Amino acid sequence: MLVDGKHYRTIWEEDWSIRIIDQRWLPHEFVEEEIDSVAGMCAAIADMHVRGAGLIGAAAGYGMHLGAREAGDDFTADIRSAGEKLVATRPTAVNLVWAVKRQLKAIDAASSREDANELTLATARAIADEDAASCKAIGEHGLGIIRELSGEGTFNILTHCNAGWLAFVDHGSAMAPIYAAHDAGLDIHVWVDETRPRNQGARLTAWELGQHGVPHTVIADNAGGHLMQHGMVDMVIVGTDRTTYTGDVANKVGTYLKALAARDNDVPFYVALPSSTFDWKTADGVGGIPIEERGADEVRYIQGLLDGKIEKVLLTPPGSPAANYAFDVTPARLVRGLITERGVCEADEDPIREMFPDGGVTYP
Amino acid sequence: MLVDGKHYRTIWEEDWSIRIIDQRWLPHEFVEEEIDSVAGMCAAIADMHVRGAGLIGAAAGYGMHLGAREAGDDFTADIRSAGEKLVATRPTAVNLVWAVKRQLKAIDAASSREDANELTLATARAIADEDAASCKAIGEHGLGIIRELSGEGTFNILTHCNAGWLAFVDHGSAMAPIYAAHDAGLDIHVWVDETRPRNQGARLTAWELGQHGVPHTVIADNAGGHLMQHGMVDMVIVGTDRTTYTGDVANKVGTYLKALAARDNDVPFYVALPSSTFDWKTADGVGGIPIEERGADEVRYIQGLLDGKIEKVLLTPPGSPAANYAFDVTPARLVRGLITERGVCEADEDPIREMFPDGGVTYP
Repeated sequence: MLVDGKHYRTIWEEDWSIRIIDQRWLPHEFVEEEIDSVAGMCAAIADMHVRGAGLIGAAAGYGMHLGAREAGDDFTADIRSAGEKLVATRPTAVNLVWAVKRQLKAIDAASSREDANELTLATARAIADEDAASCKAIGEHGLGIIRELSGEGTFNILTHCNAGWLAFVDHGSAMAPIYAAHDAGLDIHVWVDETRPRNQGARLTAWELGQHGVPHTVIADNAGGHLMQHGMVDMVIVGTDRTTYTGDVANKVGTYLKALAARDNDVPFYVALPSSTFDWKTADGVGGIPIEERGADEVRYIQGLLDGKIEKVLLTPPGSPAANYAFDVTPARLVRGLITERGVCEADEDPIREMFPDGGVTYP
Repeated sequence: MLVDGKHYRTIWEEDWSIRIIDQRWLPHEFVEEEIDSVAGMCAAIADMHVRGAGLIGAAAGYGMHLGAREAGDDFTADIRSAGEKLVATRPTAVNLVWAVKRQLKAIDAASSREDANELTLATARAIADEDAASCKAIGEHGLGIIRELSGEGTFNILTHCNAGWLAFVDHGSAMAPIYAAHDAGLDIHVWVDETRPRNQGARLTAWELGQHGVPHTVIADNAGGHLMQHGMVDMVIVGTDRTTYTGDVANKVGTYLKALAARDNDVPFYVALPSSTFDWKTADGVGGIPIEERGADEVRYIQGLLDGKIEKVLLTPPGSPAANYAFDVTPARLVRGLITERGVCEADEDPIREMFPDGGVTYP
């Protein structure tokens, strides 16, 4: 997508090194970072210079290529050690393990060190390209729904958190249909939930939309219900971190509240996802998906810009404890449809299995 | 209620002047302020040193007493001018107009200036005492519900915004049952919604609870649905800014989302209110109550503590617009009951009229 009018991906090659956007400083600073070692890539993933399922997978793919380049005499031991270091950066990220395994498999087929270098580079490129292509397909399928739902005047879409191109290699999941609609010339406007406590909406989604020229308005997470009551939201699109094969959706905390308001006001509520987020083992999302509890300081403090510097301020009384549940589960009954790279399907077991008889993208 | 172990009201008399808590600096600084003139009281109300329906009424009451004290030769003109200045500070606050009218009526009965001074002081005290007594009664009726609903173990109450003693003269509305239950020795814990964008929960409610020793945890506004899905909320109590005679409730934006989650998870959702918030003219809350849209900078910036100083930081990209709808309306069908100073009643026209055949507290 566009940044200052120039096309970007979130990770790319340049002069023999890998480059990323260090997302920690957005929207206040746009920082490109050069990564030329496994250690550098591990730090970038662990410290969340890069984040989001798709992007983390691509980063690990390129990390393994750097591992192949810098491996010493004991190539096999060194490359396995690189893989272990990459996997350890975010222990629950499924795309990380998958990308490392895919690279180890590619290396198994190599007949020489040069061959391993080339194969890991090709595989890293393939992982990134497939992620972008998958998101692009989600965008096209989502655009079909927007065309169907929209009529005269501006079409208002509400989104929560950041399932944009910054979380993938390009396009994003929930944001892909929005970009596709905007680029197709449709008159759309996006309500951006700020998404407390980490404010991915106010920081990242608003920045993405602004850079790409899509009309949008940032709102407090509390406002969506009021907007829906007054006919100011025509559609909700969100992403998902894990989707049960029955259609329950684990996404950033607060998603469930928007889904309830959408049902109460008959607003279509869609979830966009690459099939890699399907969990083929869990039937009951609310009971079966463990919800990460993160540090309380993410609630107690917030980061923003003060006199040109990025600072953190304390919001709560020093003696008040805080709790930070990072995700919630939206039951399938509240979801109008799933927008996947293969098309749109109902959030229910039979239609999901019909569209993905092979399990979709599989993580070996 | 208690501050550092000492009993406080939000407004009181001391050495011939009126004192308030300047709430703008809470929770980071506890500032007492002396008010000795109409101009001082007007500034305190307009700049929100004091806020909340009950407290604003009491502040205007004392403001009129100061007006009587400082009136010049043309007493009638001067006192009317004081009233006009006080009313102009927050043009939509119904308690402000009511308190000023009540004081003008009291002055009508005065036979001398000394008499007017004494009558306005007595009336100011009466307004404050009645507010505190009304909130205390709400607390006792609410305690009855908590006793009924609670069983073994900790009883978890979720609240949104600040309908605490800081918004009234003492006790609060939604918080009164919580204080009553805590003081009665019940094992309660409060989930405090931070309440973006102005963070009245994280700043004021958490501070009140901490000072009074009530166990509590601050959460992002997004978290309540998840907590209710997992049986971690036994009851919701919120306040209200305006309540239709049919039981629809206009309260801080986001209240409606919590009411939806409460219904979806069978959690009792109660609204606490002095009868002064009833709107006897509006039947349809969603269609009929105008919702204040406040400045976008309340969404774009947030205030907190940095290195011992209170600072404001920018959260959003400079080019991103924001919108700030301050309230939403929770339809009566989502409300389990109204806790008033006269008792608990269903959120429906007949039971409301039965409990308040006289219209409750009336604002002449």
